[in-house]
Amino acid sequence: MNIGFLGLGNMGGPMARNLLKAGHHVTVFDLSAAAVSGLVEAGAKEATSPGAVASADVEAIITMLPAAAHVKQVYLGDGGLLANVPSGVLLIDSSTIDPMSAREVAEAAAKNGNPMLDAPVSGGTIGAAAGTLTFMVGGSEADFQKAQPILAAMGKNIVHCGDTGNGQVAKVANNMLLGISMIGVAEAMSLGVALGMDAKVLAGIINSSSGRCWASEINNPFPGVLENGPASRGYSGGFGTDLMLKDLGLASEAAKQVRQPVILGGLAQQLYQVFSMQGHGGLDFSAIIKLYRQED
Amino acid sequence: MNIGFLGLGNMGGPMARNLLKAGHHVTVFDLSAAAVSGLVEAGAKEATSPGAVASADVEAIITMLPAAAHVKQVYLGDGGLLANVPSGVLLIDSSTIDPMSAREVAEAAAKNGNPMLDAPVSGGTIGAAAGTLTFMVGGSEADFQKAQPILAAMGKNIVHCGDTGNGQVAKVANNMLLGISMIGVAEAMSLGVALGMDAKVLAGIINSSSGRCWASEINNPFPGVLENGPASRGYSGGFGTDLMLKDLGLASEAAKQVRQPVILGGLAQQLYQVFSMQGHGGLDFSAIIKLYRQED
Amino acid sequence: MNIGFLGLGNMGGPMARNLLKAGHHVTVFDLSAAAVSGLVEAGAKEATSPGAVASADVEAIITMLPAAAHVKQVYLGDGGLLANVPSGVLLIDSSTIDPMSAREVAEAAAKNGNPMLDAPVSGGTIGAAAGTLTFMVGGSEADFQKAQPILAAMGKNIVHCGDTGNGQVAKVANNMLLGISMIGVAEAMSLGVALGMDAKVLAGIINSSSGRCWASEINNPFPGVLENGPASRGYSGGFGTDLMLKDLGLASEAAKQVRQPVILGGLAQQLYQVFSMQGHGGLDFSAIIKLYRQED
Amino acid sequence: MNIGFLGLGNMGGPMARNLLKAGHHVTVFDLSAAAVSGLVEAGAKEATSPGAVASADVEAIITMLPAAAHVKQVYLGDGGLLANVPSGVLLIDSSTIDPMSAREVAEAAAKNGNPMLDAPVSGGTIGAAAGTLTFMVGGSEADFQKAQPILAAMGKNIVHCGDTGNGQVAKVANNMLLGISMIGVAEAMSLGVALGMDAKVLAGIINSSSGRCWASEINNPFPGVLENGPASRGYSGGFGTDLMLKDLGLASEAAKQVRQPVILGGLAQQLYQVFSMQGHGGLDFSAIIKLYRQED
Repeated sequence: MNIGFLGLGNMGGPMARNLLKAGHHVTVFDLSAAAVSGLVEAGAKEATSPGAVASADVEAIITMLPAAAHVKQVYLGDGGLLANVPSGVLLIDSSTIDPMSAREVAEAAAKNGNPMLDAPVSGGTIGAAAGTLTFMVGGSEADFQKAQPILAAMGKNIVHCGDTGNGQVAKVANNMLLGISMIGVAEAMSLGVALGMDAKVLAGIINSSSGRCWASEINNPFPGVLENGPASRGYSGGFGTDLMLKDLGLASEAAKQVRQPVILGGLAQQLYQVFSMQGHGGLDFSAIIKLYRQED
Repeated sequence: MNIGFLGLGNMGGPMARNLLKAGHHVTVFDLSAAAVSGLVEAGAKEATSPGAVASADVEAIITMLPAAAHVKQVYLGDGGLLANVPSGVLLIDSSTIDPMSAREVAEAAAKNGNPMLDAPVSGGTIGAAAGTLTFMVGGSEADFQKAQPILAAMGKNIVHCGDTGNGQVAKVANNMLLGISMIGVAEAMSLGVALGMDAKVLAGIINSSSGRCWASEINNPFPGVLENGPASRGYSGGFGTDLMLKDLGLASEAAKQVRQPVILGGLAQQLYQVFSMQGHGGLDFSAIIKLYRQED
Repeated sequence: MNIGFLGLGNMGGPMARNLLKAGHHVTVFDLSAAAVSGLVEAGAKEATSPGAVASADVEAIITMLPAAAHVKQVYLGDGGLLANVPSGVLLIDSSTIDPMSAREVAEAAAKNGNPMLDAPVSGGTIGAAAGTLTFMVGGSEADFQKAQPILAAMGKNIVHCGDTGNGQVAKVANNMLLGISMIGVAEAMSLGVALGMDAKVLAGIINSSSGRCWASEINNPFPGVLENGPASRGYSGGFGTDLMLKDLGLASEAAKQVRQPVILGGLAQQLYQVFSMQGHGGLDFSAIIKLYRQED
Repeated sequence: MNIGFLGLGNMGGPMARNLLKAGHHVTVFDLSAAAVSGLVEAGAKEATSPGAVASADVEAIITMLPAAAHVKQVYLGDGGLLANVPSGVLLIDSSTIDPMSAREVAEAAAKNGNPMLDAPVSGGTIGAAAGTLTFMVGGSEADFQKAQPILAAMGKNIVHCGDTGNGQVAKVANNMLLGISMIGVAEAMSLGVALGMDAKVLAGIINSSSGRCWASEINNPFPGVLENGPASRGYSGGFGTDLMLKDLGLASEAAKQVRQPVILGGLAQQLYQVFSMQGHGGLDFSAIIKLYRQED
């Protein structure tokens, strides 16, 4: 297939490479010349503007951008995708943005005659490189079926979450819960250890009891519990604090728009904001446990 | 074996019955005559005071009491267990109390020449009746080995959590995390549905993603997601709101004693307090989701 | 002076009337014909669009609109103020919006050759009618001096808060603190009464001690403490819960933009969101105490 | 009058001195020999045990102790006050403890034939030395009248708060509100400055608006706003973080006992716990603003 790809950053770059590896023809655009030339070396064609991607005889276009403002600019702006793309071309936005903005852009696409899916991912840069991302997809069943073979070149789990915007809803709801869980695990582990328990024993009990969760089992924040987790290598790598902070901000913003309280979600956002302000924005989000323990 | 048992309430009653079923001789005490006569019909011997249990030629004594004040009274009070029990008799307290009090009583027992274990349970009244409780046990390895066959008559998982008090620590840390997780799931599910997602689809995604936890998988608070869960039968049965509130109070109290912050844990306690004040103390603790949704 | 006025709602209507009473010539615009005709009866001239106000030979234009989206539309949209207003005309926005948006609009105004002030108010509909509003004004000293006689026709305290946007900053910071204080007073009063104190005695002690604040002295939320306060008339009138909720939303949004944690501010927002969801959005914001007390 | 005084620490020492200055005969006891000898030099008589104070022909006894456990020990313990004091002697406990404990001790005193008042203070060590403390007094009107001349030698405001325990209730409710207010001011000031305002201008606006409170006016936490406040001298002196933390702990404990939610109060406690854990327990409680600002 001929596929357009906009946004070749830490996530988008390896995703576009995986499309090339799967045999697709890929036309790329990014503001960074270095990012573009890397992809061109790997076999992609360069386009010099979003509009040029849209005019390049592609069957589908994928975007991977930092925030809703960029998505709106690239899709709705002068010289953007909708102003140049032929009707019928499938549009897939894999950026993580708020559901309302996703729906607004998809509505404009529909008026333009373009089916559109929101398809944010989880799995981080490692999943992007390995082609093992999870895609949470919002849009019609028919469009989801069309997109599946494309997304399968970049990910392992392709989940249909319902209508337009619901891919973003699923991501934002899941990640808000993840942020809360991680802080909860940080508090429970810190409390147990402060009261005299061995951290590994406590983790073992929690993981076979009603406190068990992804954050306690797969990314336990207490140093030494998981030999290969971020907590045992100074919290490097993994899912960054500032990315969690961004997702919690999206969650509380979306909640405000529908007048839905998110009490722990809102508090988790503020605690990650404190932790980021203290200079830890680049650490894995499990490092939030540092708020709860005296520096050794 | 000859075993003493004090505290024949909703939990203690069925636990003592399971000891009888396993062939043990059980001498019981409770302030409620009805509770005692029920056990006597099932084959137990009656004692008229804690001291009388202690003097009844028992090899081990188990207590299952509502709070630390009762435990201190029964063990340390005039006419209590320690004043009457021969040295060497094994003492097992299955009450859920704060770790500091558990250690204080165990220390007094040790001075009296009695090995003592703290062994709080999880599994609720259903687990107590079925003999499938989990015991979280604090004390020496040797004492744990001695207690195991006794506890095995009442439970399925008997976990050694380390030294004296650590059974209570494990329970309080696990249950604090459980309370936080449940509210987190309540918020994530409510948010996703308010933003337009189907509750079952959202639960499915969370349960295969990084938000998954016991509260989302086994006791999802959103009505209709789990056919047989409390949420689908008006939140009856299960683990009561007021019991969760008690455990969160123990957690924040223990945290205060060791000067350990528990920010989400403390907020979860207050939210359960609000919910209990509104008259919902008897509902399953997953009913906290009612705080987040308009009454239908 | 010839003054334009856009936005004739509960606040803007009486404000425009006070300008007329002070002898100014006022040209008005609102989407509601009824609102416009009321002002025309009082002596105002009608304009049929924002652009028409801008072209009506006015020396200053005041806007009083519900949210940032409306402000941007009215100032920056096609047919809006900036596209039609002659350079030099003084622009005053009295809407309560986030500081970033206020600065964005003021910058566009400056490029257009128009001095602009942000001048949000406090004092509510009663203050608007009585001409006793407080104006918190952001912009240059010179522009502030020019605006003062105009604002003095509508308010009693005209405070210069510094450069552009700082009027909004002052309002959002003050009102976030007010929301926190009100909940704090609600908790302290509820706690004291639950522990056995008389509410009036407790309020008296707080008001002469270090807990005293505007919320305890002027708008004590406990029924019966202040004879003429909202709490003693079923929480009718006053500053509505949904307005407080809006301001707390502006505060947390502005905080996010500058990466500033506001932990209690964020929690206050969520608690007001819960209270609004329960159907109390129209009550005075002191009614939040209902979250803390069983219904009588 | 002949007065007994137990507890000669940072507060009790200067309070006992003021009784001597006012011409009373004072018999003192403290575990610290140095504290006792200081008072003896100032004219006091030494007693070698609480019971000895009680037997020393005194008309009233004042206690100033760190926590409820000490109060119970001194009043109710073997060789304590109640076991030795003649009936009719007036007992005044100025310690800050939870209201339930205060009522428990007062009840025991009543059975012993001794009128008892709880009379915790505010005003800190400076107020203790200057004799300008505020006493919040719980007990009968008649006993309050008897105590007033004694307390007047040590304080300026002597407030009757109602029946037994209500002195403690007033203090705990007021100080919980104070802790919340201080954090609220810290957040509002930090937010305003982060958004571009001058701290003094912002403080001035808040102090003439609805956000004003003791914490913003008298002990503004932002450095430089008040020339002589703790914030302008590195947060030395004043009311210590660990004392605020203690009072917030008493508030949430008392709230738990009466099943009263204190959501912001509980969160304030946890935030002060974080701040104390970071090593700031000795700073004035306004230093909590450091949680909200990057170290300069």
